Amino acid sequence: MTTPNLLTATEAAEAIRTGNLTSRDLIDACIARAEERADDVGAWIYLNPCLAREQADNCDQALAEGRDLGPLHGVPVGLKDIIDTADMPTENGSALFEGRRPVADSTIARLLRAAGAVIMGKTVTTEFALSAPGKTKNPHDPAHTPGGSSSGSAAGVADHQVPLSVGTQTGGSMIRPASYCGIHGFKPTFGSISRAGMFPLARPLDHPGVYARSIDDIALIGDVLMVKDPADLDMRGHPRGKLADALSAPAGEPPKIAFVRGPMWEQGEDYLDDVMQGALVQLGKHVQEVEMTGVFDRALACQETVMMANVLANIGDYCRDHADKVREETHRRAKSGEGIAADDYIKAIEFRDTIAAALDRMFDGYDVLITAGATGEAPEGLGSTGNAAFQKMWTLLGVPTVTLPMLKGPNGLPIGLQVIGRYAHDGDMLRHARWIEEQF
Amino acid sequence: MTTPNLLTATEAAEAIRTGNLTSRDLIDACIARAEERADDVGAWIYLNPCLAREQADNCDQALAEGRDLGPLHGVPVGLKDIIDTADMPTENGSALFEGRRPVADSTIARLLRAAGAVIMGKTVTTEFALSAPGKTKNPHDPAHTPGGSSSGSAAGVADHQVPLSVGTQTGGSMIRPASYCGIHGFKPTFGSISRAGMFPLARPLDHPGVYARSIDDIALIGDVLMVKDPADLDMRGHPRGKLADALSAPAGEPPKIAFVRGPMWEQGEDYLDDVMQGALVQLGKHVQEVEMTGVFDRALACQETVMMANVLANIGDYCRDHADKVREETHRRAKSGEGIAADDYIKAIEFRDTIAAALDRMFDGYDVLITAGATGEAPEGLGSTGNAAFQKMWTLLGVPTVTLPMLKGPNGLPIGLQVIGRYAHDGDMLRHARWIEEQF
Repeated sequence: MTTPNLLTATEAAEAIRTGNLTSRDLIDACIARAEERADDVGAWIYLNPCLAREQADNCDQALAEGRDLGPLHGVPVGLKDIIDTADMPTENGSALFEGRRPVADSTIARLLRAAGAVIMGKTVTTEFALSAPGKTKNPHDPAHTPGGSSSGSAAGVADHQVPLSVGTQTGGSMIRPASYCGIHGFKPTFGSISRAGMFPLARPLDHPGVYARSIDDIALIGDVLMVKDPADLDMRGHPRGKLADALSAPAGEPPKIAFVRGPMWEQGEDYLDDVMQGALVQLGKHVQEVEMTGVFDRALACQETVMMANVLANIGDYCRDHADKVREETHRRAKSGEGIAADDYIKAIEFRDTIAAALDRMFDGYDVLITAGATGEAPEGLGSTGNAAFQKMWTLLGVPTVTLPMLKGPNGLPIGLQVIGRYAHDGDMLRHARWIEEQF
Repeated sequence: MTTPNLLTATEAAEAIRTGNLTSRDLIDACIARAEERADDVGAWIYLNPCLAREQADNCDQALAEGRDLGPLHGVPVGLKDIIDTADMPTENGSALFEGRRPVADSTIARLLRAAGAVIMGKTVTTEFALSAPGKTKNPHDPAHTPGGSSSGSAAGVADHQVPLSVGTQTGGSMIRPASYCGIHGFKPTFGSISRAGMFPLARPLDHPGVYARSIDDIALIGDVLMVKDPADLDMRGHPRGKLADALSAPAGEPPKIAFVRGPMWEQGEDYLDDVMQGALVQLGKHVQEVEMTGVFDRALACQETVMMANVLANIGDYCRDHADKVREETHRRAKSGEGIAADDYIKAIEFRDTIAAALDRMFDGYDVLITAGATGEAPEGLGSTGNAAFQKMWTLLGVPTVTLPMLKGPNGLPIGLQVIGRYAHDGDMLRHARWIEEQF
């Protein structure tokens, strides 16, 4: 086993558990890859090899003593640098938080450690998880953006520097980087993963999510993190079982799939129709195109209102009191929250329920929806992280989505096939997503 | 049994069930009382004797056939006229909705009918459940306000025109009228009674509640209405049993009671301290005065921001498009929601959680809080429904409160003793409230 960093998390965990691999060898391979690719990819904002190796050694020691620490025993995970860690800085991508060391772990970090994971380091985020880019480049072509805001989390997994990572999505920050970088990205139902100890950008929209290189890996880490936590007041006790159980359930009928363009499609690249046609052919009679108009036409504006009012509430003071330490792009975004009247905000929040009800009715006829993961391939240039139009509606509505690295654009760069599930039906969505993968 | 309208609901239900009273005789007595007091009290905006008697006759017929329709079999209930009824108009106290007949029952009306209740009629509300008064007068003195917005619901129960009624509270609209009218008023934990089919004034604050003349009656109707309903998206599945079970549980230790003045006390009448002292003496060593400052000082302003922004969102279009059909006082209130910025609204909504956490910690040391039900006696005059300062904080925080008709002001008019319970501990609160009643 010469290149353990190429293993999926499920393979690595199994190899460690059966004595065929040590966590130390795995983390050494991951660190070596990260260092080798520091200039070309630059996924990490904080990576302390000593600290990572110490955790790995502790895992190996525990196993030698017969103690299995949990489902992620010895497996490295990267954390977006807006997720607090007590033993590493957490800078929120901001000069204002330079050198900040949280006093306590976030719930995410705590759950990962409790499951035996090695927190490998902190991955690059845009400033405040908005749109001012960090240093990360697309692993497939360093002249192209990896997407954002979870830039380092997606690029690190895509570049085999780490098998798993955690990111967040308020607009399109999980699914777009996964689509651009050619990996699996999963944004669970709103309120499924705790945000306690995470930088708040927009409380009604902030979704933590996970990156991996297989659906099984998504379920492996998803089941560790999707745990109710009273410290996050917006969590919901969804009635559902483990993702892994949904995946291992006996295969039933093939899913009924709706292909939707939706109001975002007009922002897609010209080639997107051709790219998508290829996927539709593979899925044959199991997929039908379904129109998504009416109330859905207002979804993007609604998401924008909810997001930008909350962004201003959360970072307005930083922009005002520390103007010189906040980047121009961030000032611009925060400014777009100014002038939103409270009653218009409330109407947007309430109209969201109307759209959500309309979406829910679609699931009476279809098991999952599919669409493109992003407007196209990762755009050239590192000055922008791309267009979030293809992710915003699902974030607004809080439904689960997963993007599968199955399509390619005209430059040979990846495009995700995005699968959207019914609210709180995350496990079913993953099972159907796997069925879709198997058709290709 | 010459005056069945004087019975409590529990007594009436029992008498009907045992054949000692017919629902028809009860409703006849209630209607007679309502008609007799139409000028002096004026609790009803819609009362159709035929329709009420028809329901009562159906109940009597059912019992004759051996069918017990439920816990409220044959018992009349008044509904605030913002709660939809398919067989009666629902005008929301507004000229704009004159003659409006809803196509369907509200969930509240449906649950009451399913429990065997007779919907006696619709009770007077202020315009849109805000502060422009209706015709109702205080049953104890027609020169004084009954309070509002649930004016007719409170006055009708206090005046023995109906044993039970339903009202709503967004600021102080349940507890203040109960305090002024000298009855039991109960506002359960936020999200416990469905608002489906009810005029929305401020979704994060609107609480339906119930009026009665005993704590047992509160539990009787409360248990019928506190049922999860997917049609109200803000309902929470609180882990708790029936109120009646909490009341019939074996009496344990006497409760630990905290008397709080809070930031509202400075708006109280000068005599309020003396009135309250009398109550504290009765409770002796079981009550301690506890200071309520710090974050609580911002509660009233926070409630005002949340309420008025939502009021504007909900009635702003009526004020603009039908200005002449909206009363001046309502225009004034809606106007106070203008100019609230969305980010300030969001900060208020989030600060509410901070205050709620501080309040919750108080319940680690005390079983219930007590304070006055209102700033004093019902003020003279019918042009205003009084000051909501003593109710707003508990509405904002969503905790359960019940007011007990146990105090009197210098003019001999009633003042409630308000008991505040821990979030989602409604049954415990009622049990402790009964213990408090028994000390007097």
